[in-house]
Formats: sequence, structure tokens, C-alpha cells
Amino acid sequence: MAPGPLNAITDVEGVLVGHTTLVAGEGATAVRTGVTAVVPRKDVWDELVFASVFVLNGNGQMTGTAWIQDSELLGFPVMLTSSASVGQVYDAVVAYLFRRDPSRRAGLQAVVTECWDGLLNDIRGRHIRPDHVFEAIEGAKGGLVAEGSVGAGTGMVSYELKGGIGTASRRVPPEAGGHTVGVLVLTNQGSRRQLLVDGVPVGREISDLLPEVHARSLDKDENSIIMVVATDAPLSSRALERLARRATMGLARTGATAHASSGDIAIAFSTAQTVTRTGQGEIELRTLRPGRLDPLFDAAAEATEEAIINSLTMATTTTGVNGNRVHALPLDRLKEILLRYGRLER
Amino acid sequence: MAPGPLNAITDVEGVLVGHTTLVAGEGATAVRTGVTAVVPRKDVWDELVFASVFVLNGNGQMTGTAWIQDSELLGFPVMLTSSASVGQVYDAVVAYLFRRDPSRRAGLQAVVTECWDGLLNDIRGRHIRPDHVFEAIEGAKGGLVAEGSVGAGTGMVSYELKGGIGTASRRVPPEAGGHTVGVLVLTNQGSRRQLLVDGVPVGREISDLLPEVHARSLDKDENSIIMVVATDAPLSSRALERLARRATMGLARTGATAHASSGDIAIAFSTAQTVTRTGQGEIELRTLRPGRLDPLFDAAAEATEEAIINSLTMATTTTGVNGNRVHALPLDRLKEILLRYGRLER
Amino acid sequence: MAPGPLNAITDVEGVLVGHTTLVAGEGATAVRTGVTAVVPRKDVWDELVFASVFVLNGNGQMTGTAWIQDSELLGFPVMLTSSASVGQVYDAVVAYLFRRDPSRRAGLQAVVTECWDGLLNDIRGRHIRPDHVFEAIEGAKGGLVAEGSVGAGTGMVSYELKGGIGTASRRVPPEAGGHTVGVLVLTNQGSRRQLLVDGVPVGREISDLLPEVHARSLDKDENSIIMVVATDAPLSSRALERLARRATMGLARTGATAHASSGDIAIAFSTAQTVTRTGQGEIELRTLRPGRLDPLFDAAAEATEEAIINSLTMATTTTGVNGNRVHALPLDRLKEILLRYGRLER
Amino acid sequence: MAPGPLNAITDVEGVLVGHTTLVAGEGATAVRTGVTAVVPRKDVWDELVFASVFVLNGNGQMTGTAWIQDSELLGFPVMLTSSASVGQVYDAVVAYLFRRDPSRRAGLQAVVTECWDGLLNDIRGRHIRPDHVFEAIEGAKGGLVAEGSVGAGTGMVSYELKGGIGTASRRVPPEAGGHTVGVLVLTNQGSRRQLLVDGVPVGREISDLLPEVHARSLDKDENSIIMVVATDAPLSSRALERLARRATMGLARTGATAHASSGDIAIAFSTAQTVTRTGQGEIELRTLRPGRLDPLFDAAAEATEEAIINSLTMATTTTGVNGNRVHALPLDRLKEILLRYGRLER
Repeated sequence: MAPGPLNAITDVEGVLVGHTTLVAGEGATAVRTGVTAVVPRKDVWDELVFASVFVLNGNGQMTGTAWIQDSELLGFPVMLTSSASVGQVYDAVVAYLFRRDPSRRAGLQAVVTECWDGLLNDIRGRHIRPDHVFEAIEGAKGGLVAEGSVGAGTGMVSYELKGGIGTASRRVPPEAGGHTVGVLVLTNQGSRRQLLVDGVPVGREISDLLPEVHARSLDKDENSIIMVVATDAPLSSRALERLARRATMGLARTGATAHASSGDIAIAFSTAQTVTRTGQGEIELRTLRPGRLDPLFDAAAEATEEAIINSLTMATTTTGVNGNRVHALPLDRLKEILLRYGRLER
Repeated sequence: MAPGPLNAITDVEGVLVGHTTLVAGEGATAVRTGVTAVVPRKDVWDELVFASVFVLNGNGQMTGTAWIQDSELLGFPVMLTSSASVGQVYDAVVAYLFRRDPSRRAGLQAVVTECWDGLLNDIRGRHIRPDHVFEAIEGAKGGLVAEGSVGAGTGMVSYELKGGIGTASRRVPPEAGGHTVGVLVLTNQGSRRQLLVDGVPVGREISDLLPEVHARSLDKDENSIIMVVATDAPLSSRALERLARRATMGLARTGATAHASSGDIAIAFSTAQTVTRTGQGEIELRTLRPGRLDPLFDAAAEATEEAIINSLTMATTTTGVNGNRVHALPLDRLKEILLRYGRLER
Repeated sequence: MAPGPLNAITDVEGVLVGHTTLVAGEGATAVRTGVTAVVPRKDVWDELVFASVFVLNGNGQMTGTAWIQDSELLGFPVMLTSSASVGQVYDAVVAYLFRRDPSRRAGLQAVVTECWDGLLNDIRGRHIRPDHVFEAIEGAKGGLVAEGSVGAGTGMVSYELKGGIGTASRRVPPEAGGHTVGVLVLTNQGSRRQLLVDGVPVGREISDLLPEVHARSLDKDENSIIMVVATDAPLSSRALERLARRATMGLARTGATAHASSGDIAIAFSTAQTVTRTGQGEIELRTLRPGRLDPLFDAAAEATEEAIINSLTMATTTTGVNGNRVHALPLDRLKEILLRYGRLER
Repeated sequence: MAPGPLNAITDVEGVLVGHTTLVAGEGATAVRTGVTAVVPRKDVWDELVFASVFVLNGNGQMTGTAWIQDSELLGFPVMLTSSASVGQVYDAVVAYLFRRDPSRRAGLQAVVTECWDGLLNDIRGRHIRPDHVFEAIEGAKGGLVAEGSVGAGTGMVSYELKGGIGTASRRVPPEAGGHTVGVLVLTNQGSRRQLLVDGVPVGREISDLLPEVHARSLDKDENSIIMVVATDAPLSSRALERLARRATMGLARTGATAHASSGDIAIAFSTAQTVTRTGQGEIELRTLRPGRLDPLFDAAAEATEEAIINSLTMATTTTGVNGNRVHALPLDRLKEILLRYGRLER
């Protein structure tokens, strides 16, 4: 299936992405963190979109899910950040909401999710401030999406390589509906030996370049992946939950098995139709029949798989807290391996 | 079934409750809010208890649930507060955790839940500060539990009467195991006409004393109830989820039907056994057989029903933001009605 | 809230109910069983309705639920029967489907649910035959619904009194939408001491008339309740799941606490719109906004509560297998108790 | 990770597998169907094992799941069969249970699951008889497991090649616990172009040998996969649910994306400990800590991936109803492709 023009979640019209990246200092208080806002549509605060959530493994936080599941709607940007900054970001989103709308007093279930960036970031410092959050939300825009060590991805580690933000999209053929599925991931998951790229065991081939950890605070580093799936196909919340499940099938193809210490959480939303927050009466909703969902399911799995790989290929080697150092996936070696496994001539 | 000696959640040995109550000012910036900590055991941060969550209606926030569900464990106090202060409380819990344990860098999925106190409280002010949270946690204690307009319950409204914190307990007969079930609720739910007390339609009998609202910001006030169920019976997480569902049956008996704008969320935990956070290997777990669960189910429903009524009978008439005034349930009239319906001679 | 004209699930236009009642013999092989079909609409096989399921306690069987949940649709009658006859009824429904539509070869996830009628029925005999099933489906009709010891309810026991089939309905006021909610229950749940009628502790007042059991085969009799909720309000499957949860709140008000050996399962469907089984493309769907759901939630709880009581008041004292005898709720004593508790003057 | 000695689900000690294969006739009434019993332990009827279920896509039937989920236990063999024979098999299991235990009258929630074999089998004929079911249960044994076109797999089609029964196992290294995970699958899922073998796009390389369908009754053939995961590791039901989810990650690696018409259902059980059906009091349960689950998760994904491929490599080209013909995966071409993609030298 072909990607959209940008091969990014922003190929789904109206979706905006904003990053605030914090890189400062060295040693014990090195800051390598950030916040990323995926905004389903500029006015999502008042014009809600259908959405749903799927948890593959629950060692992670996504706030606001109970109301998404029951109301079937999402009225917030999806905010991604460091595990230790969930409270700060949540509070800043509420503050932003109040500032934006002087009459708003209710509907405060912000959606904040996280991965653990403590291998590279002074996570105990909780360095995200309200202005960082406002900047990510207000600076969110369409078009090209910065990937790799940026925004919430600044300090993330995936397959024991530098991970972070990745994105990709797929466009369903016109005869199958012509809809677009875009995915943005925050990657922090996986063991090196598991890594697959296009089915090739790249992680077993590149067994060096492991993280250089001078002061490890955990027996085992926590790891997680957040998958945000957007589409312009008209889908009910249940169909979106089914779409979210397919993101985890793309994840599986990159080798991970959702380890117990991982928060592997997917959220899917559709921009095809909106529901006014304060409206009354009936909602008119369109949704594709089961038989029309398959190309979207394929697209979600494919785009997630590629978004994860993109988060690796776009990230840069990063030295962080205590001098810990995580390497980027070496692209020349990747290319050589793929050639050797019969992939690149196609 | 008989209550425990205190008729409170603290009848479950080891459970602590702490309140910080904020009452200040009048008019547009009147503060009527607070925070309540239900601490399953003093060292819950490191010695986790089995737990599970059930959402009857999702228009509410409870953070940290994904990991409770998958890990089957709770490693945090359950923090109750105002809808607008979830982020603040979450961040303060993480700060507290870091302060308490200088080596702690992971396991940060705090459990914060809320109801909407905007009818009496300047909710846009987000008045909870970190010290308020620390005070609720550190001041948590066993023994008698303050009820009514206290802690997170300070500004809550239930059945269009003053609600807030309520608690009750039940002790299973010795021959059925002798275990205790304790419940603490934060009540903010229900329409007046629905209110039942011991099956008597008290809400239809007392149709006056409605809230005096000078500036209503919502077409319909949001409403919710949080139910915290504790037990010393050894139960698996699934059995605890089943116990949490029974709390909603107690709720039903007070008349509510979990309206769409309500966040009706129950969390249940067992103090009978703990799991060390950083342990390895196997967990030895005891759980009651299905056939032994019934007395506990009965107890959870009964204790929840009574805890809700207690939150009403213990609350005091409160004037809050913009001069809005919510009346306490008049106890003399309640007594007269119950007599008339054949209840009090028994 | 007022009932519909029939105070039955058939007040929801298009809904049909069919019963086959089997009463034969005495002693060890006494047959006291049956099958009941709740048909959402005559052509539900090809014109599917939106639906969802909620399990309060899982000690029961409802087949076909995985596809209802993911497809959001119900394309079968809901078949109620004896626990031991689920396979027979399932197979007969598939046979009926094949007979009805000579080209049908797929879409075979029949919906069959059950309660345990072994206290009165020779349950090991598995007495339901295909013709009994065909008769219930083909004989299903609108209008008055037989209640009590009929169809699947023939051998059921509720609150240690004779239970079975009950039905009721509520009509939402025109200004709130004017929709109808109808409920049909198959009651087999509850301990006597729990029984509440309109909040009055009737079970404690009538502590005699317990089942006369000459040969009990179980330490504790299994018990369950199946709740079928129909509405003509346009609702998404998720909204229907929320409606199904409210049925359990009506159950709670009759005193039960969903004991561990009980299969307490609710299914809700909407007849407001249909989806053609073999259609393609988009579905146009209407659903009520969250704010409009409350009257329906109230209606589902109220109608379920009344349907359960109706199953008791309409049932007749029954002697069954091994001479076991279960008494009907004595209506004169019920009336006297309600009067004493201040209920009947209203 | 290394397979167990048999590379089969029967490497988990005590697990038995029985097949009844029905092959008869040609043309419109050709019978190509069967039934397979996966018996967790010989006396599972009375000594229950911990279990849980995960549904990736719900277009399939698995009966008995509500009680597995709430009781956390499985007390039946997992019966796999044709979609049209679920009722027959269910009824036969109940009949078997009654015959086996003359005093048994309750606990009748049999576990029957299915895929659609209508492309090769006269599915409308419902050819499974009680004796076929008894034979599968009573003939179930340990040791080598027949794979491919056998038992319930007789008429199944996967990736538009002949599918059916496949099995594989993995043994966790002794230092990680030494436990075994065994998987048995019934494969009927996937489009040819999706098929991956060890990450190699075999489905795109073998685009011929499509099913020869002379009379197709569906626009699109239904397809499904049932995954049965067994382990001897002591696991709680929730941990088993998490294990079941990992089976779907193995599925993803074979290329499928769980299409909308697919019933992709996984059930996992542990033989490490049993619970007596009629016991009382407390259950003593061991379960691995979250940190010890990862090797089991890896094992479940790996074994499922291999079991699926084994179902293809062990199946034989089959001509069935109406002369429809489905080809086996050509092993010589598979080998050549794997070599070309750099796989077989390792």
C-alpha cells in the first residue's frame, strides 16, 4: 500500500503535531526530554472526534481513557511526554483549556500518555513546565513531522538503540475507499535481539552498539510504545478500537513482544466527522461496514511498522544523564544487511 | 450483616485515610475543595496490594488503571480530589515518591481520581498545592474517618444535597470467613427525585431544599461517584474486580442510575497479602473460591449503600462559589420519613 | 416514568417474543423446561440491529457475544433456555437458518443463553428438540407476553420463589425523546432474605415458603438472570452497552448481589435502525448524545426492576423433578407487606 | 528459543490432543470436516486449570468464555470444529459430561470454538455427530500431534493455501525458569499476498496456486484463527490473558492483520496448578512476577508463529465440496525462496 504524500500522520487532513524539545546540561542533571502534542483537529476542544483505545500491555499511563471509551469521543490533543511529567502536562492542559475558554469549567479529562526516558534524562527533575506544554499545543502544525530525538522522543530508547518519534501513513486505494491512515509512535520498547526490519533480523546482525550505561538505576530499563492512529475514514468508536488493535500487529512485525515492563498503548481517532461538545439531540454518524475495514486494518499495521522503523532511522546518537550514551541505528550497516537478505533490490 | 467496630474503611486493618480540606474566601473565588488519600497500607509504595478497577460509567478520571489491571497490583494511595486538580495531585504524588525514596526513578503511574466540585468551589482556580497532597498522604491514619464536607468531599453535591466523603464497613460472619469489607465513597452523583434511603423514596418526599444556584455554569451539573473498596480477605485481582462491581449494586440501591455525565468508578484492593515491588520469582497468592465470595459481595453492596447515605447525613450545608448554596439532608425529616415507611421500629 | 401500553418488551415496535413450554411427567424425569425467543425484528437474520452485551457475573453462557461486540450488530434472535440445552438450541437455530435461507452458509454465531433449571427439571434429560426451537422462533409475536412459568422460565427459581419470565417497559416523556425501553428477564437469581419489592424487604418478611427439596443435587443451587433490553431509541453499540449496565442497577434494587454462582448477563439492542447483512459501503447511524441518554438509563433500571418482580408475581407454584416444589410469591401477603411499609397508598 | 522435544503443545506435560477427521464423498455433499479436542489434563472436568481468553477480532465463536473470565478457571477441553457444528459439539460435550459423571447436573458451560470450513466442506450438512466428539475427547493423547488437514483442520484454508492444525512449543532457558509454552492453532486466516515465513514475503513470491473455486458461496470467504496456548508455568488468569495476547503477535509475524470477517481468538491455560471443582475455602496460587513473564511472552509469540507455518507445511492439497481445490504450500519452492532471502544458511 502506498504512503500519503508526507508519509506522516499529518497526511490525515487536519491533524497537527507539535513538539517541545528540552536538551540542556550534562551529567547527573542532564535534561533530555520533551513533550509532543498530536492534535486531531485545531478545534478538537469543542468539536470532538470519534476515538478509542487499546492496551496491549498496561505498564504505562494514558489518562482520560474511561471517558473516551464510554463517550466514544476525544476532545483533547493526545499529549506524549516523560513518565515523570504526566501530572505536569495534565495540569498544563487543563490550564490551557481554561485560558483558551474563559467559560469552561467542566470536561477536564485530559489525555496524557508517556514513556520512561530515565536512561538519558534526569527524570527525577520533572523538567516539563506549563509553557513547554502550551508551546507544543499552540505550535502544532500540519505538514512534515520532525522525527527521532525530538519532543517526547528526545530521551527514548528502542531496541537498545536511540528511538523516539516516528511517523508514517498509508493510503487505501481509491476503489477501496481512498482513505488515509496515519500513525505517530513514541518508541521506547524492545530488546536488541528482537529487532526486525522488513522481516530481516537486524537486531541479531547488529549485536554491538549497545547502550553505554554508566549509572543504571534499574535492573531492567522500563520500556513502552505509544501508538497514535489517525484516519479520515468514517469509523465508529468500536471500529476505531479494532483499528488500534492492528497497530499492535505492526509493532509485532518489528520484533517486540510487549514485555511485562512495557506500556504498549494504542489510541485511534477519526477526523471524518465531529460532534459539538455542547450539542444536544442526535448524532449522525457514518461508519464503514465490517467488509470495508480490511484495507484500513492493513494500513494501520503497515504504517505502524514503518513509523517504528522511522523512529529509529531518524534518531541521532544521544549522550544524556550520567554520560549514558545510546547509539543511533547505523544506516550503512542496515542497508548492507537488507541487501544481504534480499530486500533492497525490490 | 454487622458493621466493623468503626463502621469505616479503616476497619480493614492497615488502611489509612487522610484528608486535606480547603475552605477559604467567598464569592467568585471561594475555595471549597480538598484532597483525600486512601492508603491501603503505610508502605504500599514498596509492598503492593492486589487490586482491580471497574468503571460503571466513564465520565470521570482515574489514572493508573492500565497498570493496575495488567499487574493486578496497586502500589499507590488512591488520591481523590477535584476534577481540575488531577494533574496537580498526580505531580505531587510523584514528587512525594521521589522525596520519599531518593533512588526511585520508575514505577510512576500514580492513581488519582476525581469528582467535579464546581458548583461550590472555584474550580478554575486549581487550588490544590503539593503541600496539601503531602499532608493528606502523611497525615493518613487509621481509626475514625471524618465524613461529609471534608477532604475531596468539601465541595461535592449528591442527590442535590450536600455530599462528600462517606464510609462504612461490614464484617462477614466468622463461619463465612470473618473477613471485613470497608468502603469509602466520594459522592457527587444523583438527582434528588432518585434518592432512596433503605429503599424509602426519600428524594420524592423531600423535594424542596434544592441547591440555590446563583451562577450556574453548566446546563447540567456534572456528577460522579468514586467507590473505594478495601478488604482483608485474600482475593485475586479478578475477584477484586468482581467485588468492585458489587459496589455499584450498593450505589443502585440509593437510587442513582449512573447518568451519562457521571464518572462512576470503583476500585477494590485486598490487604491480605502483599508483593514486594522489586522482588523476583514467584508470587504465592491465596484467593477465595467462587463459592466463598458471596458474603463479601453482599458486604460490598451493603457497605457502599450505607457509605453513600453516611456521606449525606454527615455533610453540612455549604455556601460556596458565587454564593451557591447546597443544603444538608435534614436529619429530622429523614427520621420522620423512615418512621412513616415502617423502617425505624426495626 | 410511565410504562408503555403493554408494559412489555413488545412495546418496542417490531420486537417479538415466542415461548415453547415443556411440562411433562413426574418424579425423577419430570420435564419442566422450555425455550424462549426474543426476536428483535422478524427479519433480524438479514436486517441486523445494533446491540451490545454486559456481563455482571460470568457464571452463565451467552454464545455469539464476541461478534456482537466487534461488529456492533445482532443478527439472531436471543434464545433463552435451560443450561443443559444450549447446544441443542444453538444447533437448531443454525438448522433453522439454513432451512430459512437455502443459500446461507456463513454468519453462524447464534445467540443462546441460559439459566439452570435443575431444581425443578430433569436437566440431565436435555429435553429441548429442534421443533421446540423452531416453534419458539416462528411463533414469536408482538402484543401481550406470557410471563412467569413459561418458555425458558418454566423451571426457574428466583429468590427461592418460583421465577421465570418477566417483562416491563418504560416510555421516556416526549420532551425527552419519547422513546421506549422494554425489558424481558429470565429470573433464576437471589436468596430469599435479599428480596426487595419497591425497596421493601419482602424477603425478610416472608421467610417461610422455602423450596421443598427432596433431592438436592448441589450444595448450592446455581442461579442466574438474563436481562434482554430493547429500545427504539437510536443508539450506538457502545451506548447500548451502557444501557445494558443499567439493567443490572434495576436488578440490584430487587436485592440480589450477583452471587458467584450466578450468570448475570444483559444484552441490549436498538430497533431504530438496521444494517443489511450483505450490504457494502458506509452505514449511516444515528445515536443520542450522552446528555440524552439519562432518561433511557432510568428507564432501563426501572423496567428491569419491575420485570423481575413481574416474573415472581406471574409465576405459579410448581412441583417438578423428584417432587421438588417451589412456591409462588403469595400476592395477598405481598400486598399486606407493601401496605405496612407505606407503599400502596401512593 | 529452543522447542520442546516434540515441538508440540503436548510438550506441556499432561496436555492431550485428540482429532476426529471426517472425509467422505465428492461434489455438493463432500464432507471435509472434523473436530479436535485440546484437553488441558485428563481430569480437567473436576480438576480445573487457570485460564483466560483474548479476542483480537470477534467474528468467531468461543463459547464458555464469560465463566472462564470471571472464575479464572477452565474445566473443559477446548473443542475446535466447523462453524456450523458448534451446537452439535456443545451438546455432545454436555452429554459426555453427564455420561462420565452420573451425579453431574451443573457447571455446563462447555468451551467450543470454530473456523469456517465451507470452501471445502459441505458446511450446511452439519456432519459432526456425538460419537465424533466422544472419540476426539476419549482418544486425546500426549506425544506427537497430527498436523495439517486433520481434525477440525480438515477443511480449513489459510493464506489461500491449505491450512488446518499446527503446533509448536518453546522451552524457556532453565535460568529463566525452564517452563514450556506450547501452542496449537487452527488456521483459516489470511490473504495470500500477506503470508510471511520467518519474515520473508513468501506470499508475494508464490502468487499462483490460488484456490480453485467452482462454486463460491460468499463474496469473500470467512476466515479465522484459533490459538490455544498451554504452559506449565504457574500463572494467574490475568497473566494468562497477557500470554494469550502475545499469541496474536506471533500471528502478526505470519502476515495476517485480523481481517474483519475473521474470528481471531486466543485461549491460554496453565497446567501448573489445579483447583478442585467442588472444593471449598481458599485457593493457594502461585504466579510469576511481571519481570519473569518476558521469556514466556517471547515463547508464546514464537511458538504461535511457528505453529501457523507448521499448519501450512503439514497440510495436503485438498479437493472438497463442488470440486473446490486448495493447494498445499509447495515445500520446494518455499525452501528456494527462503534460501534466496538469506534464511536457510543459518
